[in-house]
Amino acid sequence: SAWRSFTRWLGRLAGSSPARAALLIFALTIGLFTSLLMMPWATASGSAPDFHDALFVATSAVTVTGLTPVNTAEHWSLAGEIVILVGIQVGGLGIITIAALLAISVTRHLGLRTRLVAQEGISTGKLGETGSLIKIVVIFSAVVELALALVLVPRLIALEGDVATGFWHGIFYSVSAFNNAGFVIHPEGLADVGHDPIVLWTLMAGVFLGSLGFPVLLLLWRHRWHFRRWSLHTRLTVEVTVLLMVVGAVLYAVLEWNHVDTLGQMTTGEKLQNSLFASVMMRSGGFSVVDNVIEHSETMLVTNALMFAGGGSASTAGGIKVTTIAVIFLAFLAEARGHEESTAHGRTIPTQAVRVAVSVVAMGATFVLISTLALIIITGEDLERPLFESISAFATCGLTTGLTEELSPSGLYVLTGLMFAGRVGIMTFAAALTIRHSRTRYRYPEARPIIG
Amino acid sequence: SAWRSFTRWLGRLAGSSPARAALLIFALTIGLFTSLLMMPWATASGSAPDFHDALFVATSAVTVTGLTPVNTAEHWSLAGEIVILVGIQVGGLGIITIAALLAISVTRHLGLRTRLVAQEGISTGKLGETGSLIKIVVIFSAVVELALALVLVPRLIALEGDVATGFWHGIFYSVSAFNNAGFVIHPEGLADVGHDPIVLWTLMAGVFLGSLGFPVLLLLWRHRWHFRRWSLHTRLTVEVTVLLMVVGAVLYAVLEWNHVDTLGQMTTGEKLQNSLFASVMMRSGGFSVVDNVIEHSETMLVTNALMFAGGGSASTAGGIKVTTIAVIFLAFLAEARGHEESTAHGRTIPTQAVRVAVSVVAMGATFVLISTLALIIITGEDLERPLFESISAFATCGLTTGLTEELSPSGLYVLTGLMFAGRVGIMTFAAALTIRHSRTRYRYPEARPIIG
Ligand SMILES: [K+]
Ligand SMILES: [K+]
Repeated sequence: SAWRSFTRWLGRLAGSSPARAALLIFALTIGLFTSLLMMPWATASGSAPDFHDALFVATSAVTVTGLTPVNTAEHWSLAGEIVILVGIQVGGLGIITIAALLAISVTRHLGLRTRLVAQEGISTGKLGETGSLIKIVVIFSAVVELALALVLVPRLIALEGDVATGFWHGIFYSVSAFNNAGFVIHPEGLADVGHDPIVLWTLMAGVFLGSLGFPVLLLLWRHRWHFRRWSLHTRLTVEVTVLLMVVGAVLYAVLEWNHVDTLGQMTTGEKLQNSLFASVMMRSGGFSVVDNVIEHSETMLVTNALMFAGGGSASTAGGIKVTTIAVIFLAFLAEARGHEESTAHGRTIPTQAVRVAVSVVAMGATFVLISTLALIIITGEDLERPLFESISAFATCGLTTGLTEELSPSGLYVLTGLMFAGRVGIMTFAAALTIRHSRTRYRYPEARPIIG
Repeated sequence: SAWRSFTRWLGRLAGSSPARAALLIFALTIGLFTSLLMMPWATASGSAPDFHDALFVATSAVTVTGLTPVNTAEHWSLAGEIVILVGIQVGGLGIITIAALLAISVTRHLGLRTRLVAQEGISTGKLGETGSLIKIVVIFSAVVELALALVLVPRLIALEGDVATGFWHGIFYSVSAFNNAGFVIHPEGLADVGHDPIVLWTLMAGVFLGSLGFPVLLLLWRHRWHFRRWSLHTRLTVEVTVLLMVVGAVLYAVLEWNHVDTLGQMTTGEKLQNSLFASVMMRSGGFSVVDNVIEHSETMLVTNALMFAGGGSASTAGGIKVTTIAVIFLAFLAEARGHEESTAHGRTIPTQAVRVAVSVVAMGATFVLISTLALIIITGEDLERPLFESISAFATCGLTTGLTEELSPSGLYVLTGLMFAGRVGIMTFAAALTIRHSRTRYRYPEARPIIG
């Protein structure tokens, strides 16, 4: 049948060009969810939504971004919200699975000498079969989301005073948090329940776990706190994640401590709690208790930097990824110390990894620059809000200055493309670069341009 | 005597740590010019200026930036303006000479296998002696500046209707242009004479030549248009410079074509001419006919990117330098093509060069980020103007949104530090990194974190 020959073709494509197959799968998934959201039953009003809104929200859900031009609670029916939730879950599982599959094909390509994924627990021997990998990812996600829901559902039932609403909201926020999606279904955003510490800490825990990435989670599950068994990837991911989280929280607290619109009127405990919450969310959670546009410009700049950094590889967090930053910083450190090789924790980082990392950052910066330029031209705004919104879309973070809600269709298409590029582009690009690597048969003489 | 033992100590320092010696020389030079500008005879009013203004202007002159918190024409006496002019000339010559000396010590360190400067004409055999290198740099600068003055002096005499004024202005702008300093001594800025094509094209020629860098100029002088004899450094510098110049001019023209405050009311020829002028100046000339703050936000964003890029290595232009961009782009290209090595024009670019390039960019971005954050906090402005002013100071460009004139002393100190770091820091940092390179005696096993 047509379906069977399509899947066979897709299988061949996945074998010959996993990166291109991943791009295609994501595009098709987004197409599917766009057409579901275009149904009249998906909206609260009962009439079909605008195509650019449906495409934007479907892309935002599948790429687990959380930006939206319409108010999720008011614009969509319950059925529409379920479509979005399924989109987030499918997108999140798809991202983790495909990233892990890409990592495996990278490992296979590189051979045993530079083992990549084997160390992470996703050894090709045990989990090489796509089916069993997907099974583990699904079970893992389900267990974590269930654990989150066990806290959130009773708490939200108590807060909202209604069993059905609390149950539905609890499920939605559990999925949204672990998948780093940042979608909210309270009309006024998280502000409605954001004063509750249990809700805040549960969301933080879900987002934090989700942002580490599947390879790290699997390894942590197996080896727990036996640090010596942690792989280099796990160590770097945890180290940079914790470092950025602390730096973000401290800067947020310092910059907003006395700002009446944000932290100013809270108790010291609440100030610290909300600073940590803001910091965790900047790196791709995308939930916010406070409107970002109310924050000081300096806070938005710090947020820009942390959004661009993002979370762990093969996770539902976006950005250029913490290991990319680690690799670049280690290269810098090696240079500053005059060492020929980048090393960390008794391991040498291959030179090619530095080039891939630089390529990823250069690509990301270029995307953000072009999108910001386009949004400034389209909206007539000055730099601040278009830059923030572009980085948020690229890094699939979902924090917003409110600009997305005001955008014309052309502006929405720019951000839609950026969410897709930031999510699927960066992931497949890095894998494709690493895989395509071939030995050259001849060498040119060296020449060294003057730098700096 | 004390002076003799000081110079002997400096000589030893230059031998053991050329980078640290360069830092010290620049700091001392800035100190000297600051104390000259602190004299009562240096100001138009006859009373000593504020220390933060004198320090800022001295730093701006010696680092050939062109930013100034006070109106050069109104705040300083003729004597003060001469001090600034001498500061620019000393700074420009110092930058070129020290950069060339650093390049030579890099070459010596690297040995013959990776020849760096020999190819550029500054072979250590012929010009190894500091004295003769300085002689060539001085003669070269004097010849070019004289040529510029031969056009500018008569033209400005004609335009201003006064021989003494025209002569002084012609000399000042010739020196300011070739050294990419961007200082103006018309009270209303270049707008007074900016309608004159001869003035504009002469300034453009001076800035363009100055921005290529001494190694490239010397090689072009020797080999002219015999492309085959051009070194890799010269080819990359010329290619990226021309590319950025064209891209900048086209974007400026497209973005400002109908903007009434900038190009809108000009003839088509004037629009093209002023777009090219703006593009050449963005990459570190720092002259502007139009106030940058009047331009569209999208134009300022493009300007930000081009200012950060900057000009050629060992030139009076600032920024991260065009060869840094070339090296990163070539690394990206090699990755995308799956090649193991970056190559260009039949030459292999050593891996270490990529790491130095990345370190320079990372350092520059960090400096700009911290300065922008500090300026936002100090001024209470939103992102746009602090970012523009920070990049302009870091890249020693000198274009301004007017923020420098409004800054409090603490803000001025931030930019002063940034000009120093952007000029001396980047130059010595890159050289120090390249020189300090040592072979490691043992290797760790490889481990490759997942990227992207
Ligand atoms: K998100
Ligand atoms: K300048």
